[in-house]
Amino acid sequence: MQIAIPLYDRFTALDAVGPYEVLARLPGAELTFVGFEKGPVRTDNGRLALHVDALLEDLPEPEVIVVPGGWGTRALLDNERMLGWIRHAHEHSQWTTSVCTGSLLLGAAGVLEGLDATSHWLELDALAEFGAKPTGRRVVEQGKVITAAGVSSGIDMALALAAKIAGQEFAETVQLLIEYDPEPPFHSGSPAKADPRLVESIRAFAAAKIG
Amino acid sequence: MQIAIPLYDRFTALDAVGPYEVLARLPGAELTFVGFEKGPVRTDNGRLALHVDALLEDLPEPEVIVVPGGWGTRALLDNERMLGWIRHAHEHSQWTTSVCTGSLLLGAAGVLEGLDATSHWLELDALAEFGAKPTGRRVVEQGKVITAAGVSSGIDMALALAAKIAGQEFAETVQLLIEYDPEPPFHSGSPAKADPRLVESIRAFAAAKIG
Repeated sequence: MQIAIPLYDRFTALDAVGPYEVLARLPGAELTFVGFEKGPVRTDNGRLALHVDALLEDLPEPEVIVVPGGWGTRALLDNERMLGWIRHAHEHSQWTTSVCTGSLLLGAAGVLEGLDATSHWLELDALAEFGAKPTGRRVVEQGKVITAAGVSSGIDMALALAAKIAGQEFAETVQLLIEYDPEPPFHSGSPAKADPRLVESIRAFAAAKIG
Repeated sequence: MQIAIPLYDRFTALDAVGPYEVLARLPGAELTFVGFEKGPVRTDNGRLALHVDALLEDLPEPEVIVVPGGWGTRALLDNERMLGWIRHAHEHSQWTTSVCTGSLLLGAAGVLEGLDATSHWLELDALAEFGAKPTGRRVVEQGKVITAAGVSSGIDMALALAAKIAGQEFAETVQLLIEYDPEPPFHSGSPAKADPRLVESIRAFAAAKIG
């Protein structure tokens, strides 16, 4: 089973690596990081580069695509090379998925029209620009399209997807292998649970950054 | 604050990228992926390469080290270049940490002598070979040494560490930014919670692989 994860300048690493860590373990998985050119691509903070191993065009019709998010999505909302790849891949895929603001790229490619979808909580409203119905749920499944919320939610999404592809027992095995028994030390993981002051301060920071 | 994450052939990506995603956001963080040579280093399954940006010797005394695990740790248990780097870094560090079987490297470097420590559940017993006292807890703090359990536990560890370095409010902000409000679809994340059949089947597989 071909699984493609597109990388691009200023993506968020955990958006991509969470699902990778689950889906690469699927029986027969051929998981490939694809992009505009082969070689290292830097994350949003510049401190890490992941390697693109194949061009987008090398894998035009993978069975599964996982589009990660990051500050770099904004620069790609009119990039036809990326959006055309997503559009064509989606026509042939078994599963079309995103993590965080990767859903904005699905939206810009026309994949989310009329669908419930999610994204990083900071960018939920932006989904409506693409005809999607934003929901605050962590993992949103609509037929073969699955969108996940911010960054770390890709792990939950990928485990649910692994169960659909290879059965619940397999997904449980992967969960045990990656010892995913979360114990967050604080209760601040969503805007509904976090201190409202923190939510507002992040909103102000992001608004300034997005400009 | 210098933060170094050593990479090596056949590491586990999420072990490194979970803590990276939290710690790179620390105020003034200079987080660097270090290794034996600069350039791409492949993960345990070969499907992903992360980029080493500096040699181990380029960062001899970082304030924080985070040693990830993976199948590749076994090959390094007598590698004096890695163990010597860990040993020297630990003498000068503010925090010496590991995720998953990264604790075996801390152990082989002599860092865990007499300390409570943890590792991936499959390799817990191996810690005793290095004079450590294995515990099944997810995050184990002993002075400036913090070990975390398997793979995904590095996220929990890094959030706890971020609070120690920059305060709880900062750690809560990061948790909100990475939307870490886990909703695992199954209850299989630890050997105590998973179906015992799965635990045994993984043990048998790992025993065959480690030989």
